Amino acid sequence: MGKKLKTRLFITALIIFSGLIFPFQSYSEPGKIKNIIILIGDGMGFQQLGLLNSYAKYAPDSIYKDRKRITAVEQVMQAGVIGCVYHEAANVLVTDSAASGTQIASGKWAGSEMIGIDEHGSPAETILEKAKKMGKAAGLVSDTRVTHATPAAFAAHQPRRTKENEIAQDILNNEVDIILGGGLGYWIPEQANDKESEIYKILTQKTLGQVYIKSKRKDNLNLIDEAVQKGYVPVFTREQMNKACGDKILGLFSYSGMPDGIVQTLNNDNPERSFPNLREMTIKAIEILEKNDNGFFLMVEAGQVDWACHNNDTGTLLHELLQFDTTLDYIFQWVKNRNDTLLIVTADHETGGFGFSYSRMNIPQPQDFPGNNFPGEKFAPSFNFGTHNILDRIYNQKLSYFGIMREFDSLPKPEQTAKMMADIVNKYTDFPIKEDEAAQILEIERNKYYIQGHDVLGAEIFPKINDFKEFYVYGREIRTGILGRVAGKYQNTVWSTGTHTNAPVPLVVYGPEEISSRFSKMLHTTELGKLAADAFIRQ
Amino acid sequence: MGKKLKTRLFITALIIFSGLIFPFQSYSEPGKIKNIIILIGDGMGFQQLGLLNSYAKYAPDSIYKDRKRITAVEQVMQAGVIGCVYHEAANVLVTDSAASGTQIASGKWAGSEMIGIDEHGSPAETILEKAKKMGKAAGLVSDTRVTHATPAAFAAHQPRRTKENEIAQDILNNEVDIILGGGLGYWIPEQANDKESEIYKILTQKTLGQVYIKSKRKDNLNLIDEAVQKGYVPVFTREQMNKACGDKILGLFSYSGMPDGIVQTLNNDNPERSFPNLREMTIKAIEILEKNDNGFFLMVEAGQVDWACHNNDTGTLLHELLQFDTTLDYIFQWVKNRNDTLLIVTADHETGGFGFSYSRMNIPQPQDFPGNNFPGEKFAPSFNFGTHNILDRIYNQKLSYFGIMREFDSLPKPEQTAKMMADIVNKYTDFPIKEDEAAQILEIERNKYYIQGHDVLGAEIFPKINDFKEFYVYGREIRTGILGRVAGKYQNTVWSTGTHTNAPVPLVVYGPEEISSRFSKMLHTTELGKLAADAFIRQ
Repeated sequence: MGKKLKTRLFITALIIFSGLIFPFQSYSEPGKIKNIIILIGDGMGFQQLGLLNSYAKYAPDSIYKDRKRITAVEQVMQAGVIGCVYHEAANVLVTDSAASGTQIASGKWAGSEMIGIDEHGSPAETILEKAKKMGKAAGLVSDTRVTHATPAAFAAHQPRRTKENEIAQDILNNEVDIILGGGLGYWIPEQANDKESEIYKILTQKTLGQVYIKSKRKDNLNLIDEAVQKGYVPVFTREQMNKACGDKILGLFSYSGMPDGIVQTLNNDNPERSFPNLREMTIKAIEILEKNDNGFFLMVEAGQVDWACHNNDTGTLLHELLQFDTTLDYIFQWVKNRNDTLLIVTADHETGGFGFSYSRMNIPQPQDFPGNNFPGEKFAPSFNFGTHNILDRIYNQKLSYFGIMREFDSLPKPEQTAKMMADIVNKYTDFPIKEDEAAQILEIERNKYYIQGHDVLGAEIFPKINDFKEFYVYGREIRTGILGRVAGKYQNTVWSTGTHTNAPVPLVVYGPEEISSRFSKMLHTTELGKLAADAFIRQ
Repeated sequence: MGKKLKTRLFITALIIFSGLIFPFQSYSEPGKIKNIIILIGDGMGFQQLGLLNSYAKYAPDSIYKDRKRITAVEQVMQAGVIGCVYHEAANVLVTDSAASGTQIASGKWAGSEMIGIDEHGSPAETILEKAKKMGKAAGLVSDTRVTHATPAAFAAHQPRRTKENEIAQDILNNEVDIILGGGLGYWIPEQANDKESEIYKILTQKTLGQVYIKSKRKDNLNLIDEAVQKGYVPVFTREQMNKACGDKILGLFSYSGMPDGIVQTLNNDNPERSFPNLREMTIKAIEILEKNDNGFFLMVEAGQVDWACHNNDTGTLLHELLQFDTTLDYIFQWVKNRNDTLLIVTADHETGGFGFSYSRMNIPQPQDFPGNNFPGEKFAPSFNFGTHNILDRIYNQKLSYFGIMREFDSLPKPEQTAKMMADIVNKYTDFPIKEDEAAQILEIERNKYYIQGHDVLGAEIFPKINDFKEFYVYGREIRTGILGRVAGKYQNTVWSTGTHTNAPVPLVVYGPEEISSRFSKMLHTTELGKLAADAFIRQ
C-alpha cells in the first residue's frame, strides 16, 4: 500500500472512529465550556451505587422496571467517561465533607473540617467564585442545609464547618445567585426564638407556617432581609419557589435538613406537599441560571445519602439514592444534547462501608441441579447469597431509622421498652425484629472516649455498639447503627462504620469529549478540583 | 467561515485530538487483538485499591517513594480507560468467586459456586477455550491453587467449586499451555499419602523436598504423569520454572495456596527462596505464551487479596496488593508499547468491606490554626481522622493473621492463653494489643446456624464475633476477624464482613483505543466476559 493511500485511509478511519465516540454531539467550537454542573452524592461510594444498581436491575417491583432497569447514573456512565476519586484531607487518612468539598471546590489541600480554607490557613478561591468573576451565574442546591459542609465549601471561607452562621453570611456576600435547600435557622435573627416577637410572626407568615421557625444565630442579623436588599427573592415553599422569577433566589425550605428520601418518596404525588425535592430545586436552579449569557456554575448535593449511611439505614439510603438519580436524570436530559456544558457526578467520600454480603443464616435448601448435564448432582450453595425480593422489601421502608428513634423517644419514659422499640421498627420496616434484638438497641455503656465539652463526645453514656465501636461517634444517634446491625442479617446487609471510609469514589463526567476525557483517571479531589476549574479557564 | 474550510479544520482538529488520545501507539491494523491478558485481583474492590493508593502516596517510608508514589494500577488507569463491574450471580445479590469467574470467563450467567457452568446447568464455553480453538496459546497463573475457583472457571466445567480433583483433570484435558500456581494436592495420587510409597519418594525427589506432599484425591490418578505424557514440563520450584523451556509448563509450587504476600515480601531478596512470586510466574507465562504466532490468552489471579480480606487482615492485604501491583507493573511494561494486546485488570467481587475510617479514640490535641488569617482560632478536628504513619506500621506486619493463629494453635493447650495470644500478635505486628483484647479472640459460643455435615457450619462451636456475626462463616478461621476488630481501632481500619460484598469493582483496560473504549462503562461480569471474548472475535 502506498504511503499516501495509507495516510488517507488512516484519516478516514479516524473520522469514522471519531464519529463512533462522538455519537451525541457536534463540535462547532471544541472545548468551549460555558456551564459546569457538579452533582455530589455526599458519602456515595461505589458501594452505594451498587445498592441503587441492584435495586434497579433485580428488584421484582423496581421503579426502574419500565425503564429497562437502567438508572440515570448508568446512562451517564455509558455516554460519558468514568474515573475514580480519592479524597484524603491534608495529613490524614480519612476526610470529612468540609475538607473534601473544599478540595473539590478549590483544587487546594485543606485541613480536616475547614471550609474554603487551604491547609496553610488561607482562603482558597473556589470554582464558584471564579465563575462569578467571569460574569457567570452561580447556584448551590442541597437537600441538607445550604450552610452545611459541602455547599459551604464552594462559597464560604471559615476555619471550621460548625460556623454555619458565618457561612450563611459568606454565601450571601458571594452573591450566589441561586441558593436552595434547608437550614433556615442560620439565616434568621435570634429574636425569632421569642414566639411573641414581631419577627417570629412575620416569618411564620412568609413561610405560610410550613417551616419550623427557630434561630441558631447568636445575633439579630436578619439575613433574609439582607438578601432581599441584595435583590434576592426569598422563598420557603415549593409553590413559592416554582413561581419565583427573579435572577436571584434564596430558598430555605426547612429549619435544618430537608425531609429525607423516604418522606420525599411517600409524598411525591401528594398535592399538598409544601417542600420541593432535589430534582425540583435543580430544575428551578437551571431554569434561572441558564438565563445568564455568560453561563453558570451549579453545585447540587444529594447530601442525605451521607446521613442515611451514618445511620447505617439501608432503606433510607435507597430512597436518598433515588432522589439523587432522578435529579441526575433531569440534569442529563438537559445536558446531553448540548456541547457547552460539563457535567461532573462524584462524591466527597464514602460513608458507612455499606454492602450486601453473604451469611450463614437461612441457607437455602438443596435443589435439583438445573439441566441434564449433571444427573444426580444437587444445587446446594454453601451460604445465603441473598435473594432479589430483599430489594423490594428495603424499598418498602416507611420511616427512616432516625424517624423511628424520634418516635420512640417521643413516648413517655415508662413506655420506652424493648417491646415498643420492636413494635415501632416492625410498623415501618419489612424486616421484623424480635424483642431481644430491640433490647440491644437500648443497651448503653460508659463512653470510654469521653471529652468534656466536646460536641458529641461530651456524652458520658453512649449506646452500646460492640464491634468497631470507636467508629460510632455521634452519641445517642448511633442507636441507629445497632438497628442496622440487628436488621442486617435479615436483609443481607453489612456496614463497617458509623463514619466515613477512604474508599475511592465514583467519578462520572459527561461533556465534550476533549474535555471529559481528561477525567478518565484516578484523581485526588484536589486534581479533580483543578481540572474542573480548568474547564472554564483553559478554553 | 466557509463550509469547506470548516470541514478541513474539523478534520485537522480530529487528527490533532486523536494524537492526544493515542499517545503511545500507532495503528497499522486497528482492532487486531492478538493477545488478551486478564489480571484479576480476587476480592479487590475500590476499597482495596484505596489502601494500596494511600500506602503509595502517603506512607512516609512507602516503597513507592522513589517511583513518584505512583502505583502500576494508577499508571494503567492514566493510560487506559476506567470502568466498573457489578457481579451478582444468577438469582442472588452476592457472588462467590466461582460464579463470578465463570461469568467473566464465559459471558454467561452462572449459579452460585458453579465452575464453567451456566445458570441452566450447561457447560459454558470460556474465553480460554475460544482462544485455544483459534490456535492461540493459553495460560492460567494464580497464587492460590490452580484448581481454585477463579482459574478453574476459565478451563473447567463442574457443578461446584469444591470438585477440585475433577477441575484438575478438566484443566489438563483443556491443554492449558501454562499452568502455574499452588494446589499440588489435587494432582497426585492418593497413594502419595503413604510416606513409604514409591510415589511419595518420587514426588519428594522431583519437588526437591520444597513442597509438602499430600494428596487430596480419592483415586490413584497421577495427573503429573498424565501431563508429562501430554508434553508438559512439570516444575515445582522457582529455579525449575525459570529453567523450563517447553511450550507447556505445569508448575505446582505448594500443596495448597502459595506463600502469602508477607512471606513473599520478606523473602523477595532471599537467594534460597524456592517458590516463585506472582510476578515471576507471570513473566514466565508470557515468555512461553508469546512464542505462539497466533497469540495467547492469559489469566493471572492475585488470589490471596481475597484471603487476606476474608481474614480482615489489613497488613497481609497490603502485601497481597503489592504482589498484585508489581505483577501488573511487569504486564504493563510488556503491553504498553504494543498494539495487538488487550490488558484487562479487574476483580470478581469485593471481600471484607475494608476501609480506613475516623474514630472517637485518640483525638489529636488542638493546635494553633495555620497561617495568620484566623487569629485566635484553633485547629481542633473533632475526631481522629488517622495519621500517615499508620501506613508504614501496617506495612511492617511480619506474619499474616492466619499465621499468627497457626502459631498460637501449635502451642501446647495449657499455653494457649490470652497473654500468649497477645504476645504472638505483638511480636509480629506494629499495633500491640492488650491481654483483655487478646482474650476476646479466644471467646467462643454455640454456632446458632449449625448444619450437620456442612463444610464449615458443621462446627457446633464458633469464635464469638458480636456484631454482624452471620457474615462470619468459616468456623475457627473467623478468629482472625476478631483480631481485625481488636486491631482496627489502633490502625483506623474497619471491616464489614468476613465474606464478600456486592460493591461494584474496578475495571481498568489498556489496549488499542477502539477496543478499550468499549469498556469505559458500568458492566456486569457477563457483559465484561462478552466484550473480552468479542475482542478476539470481532476483529
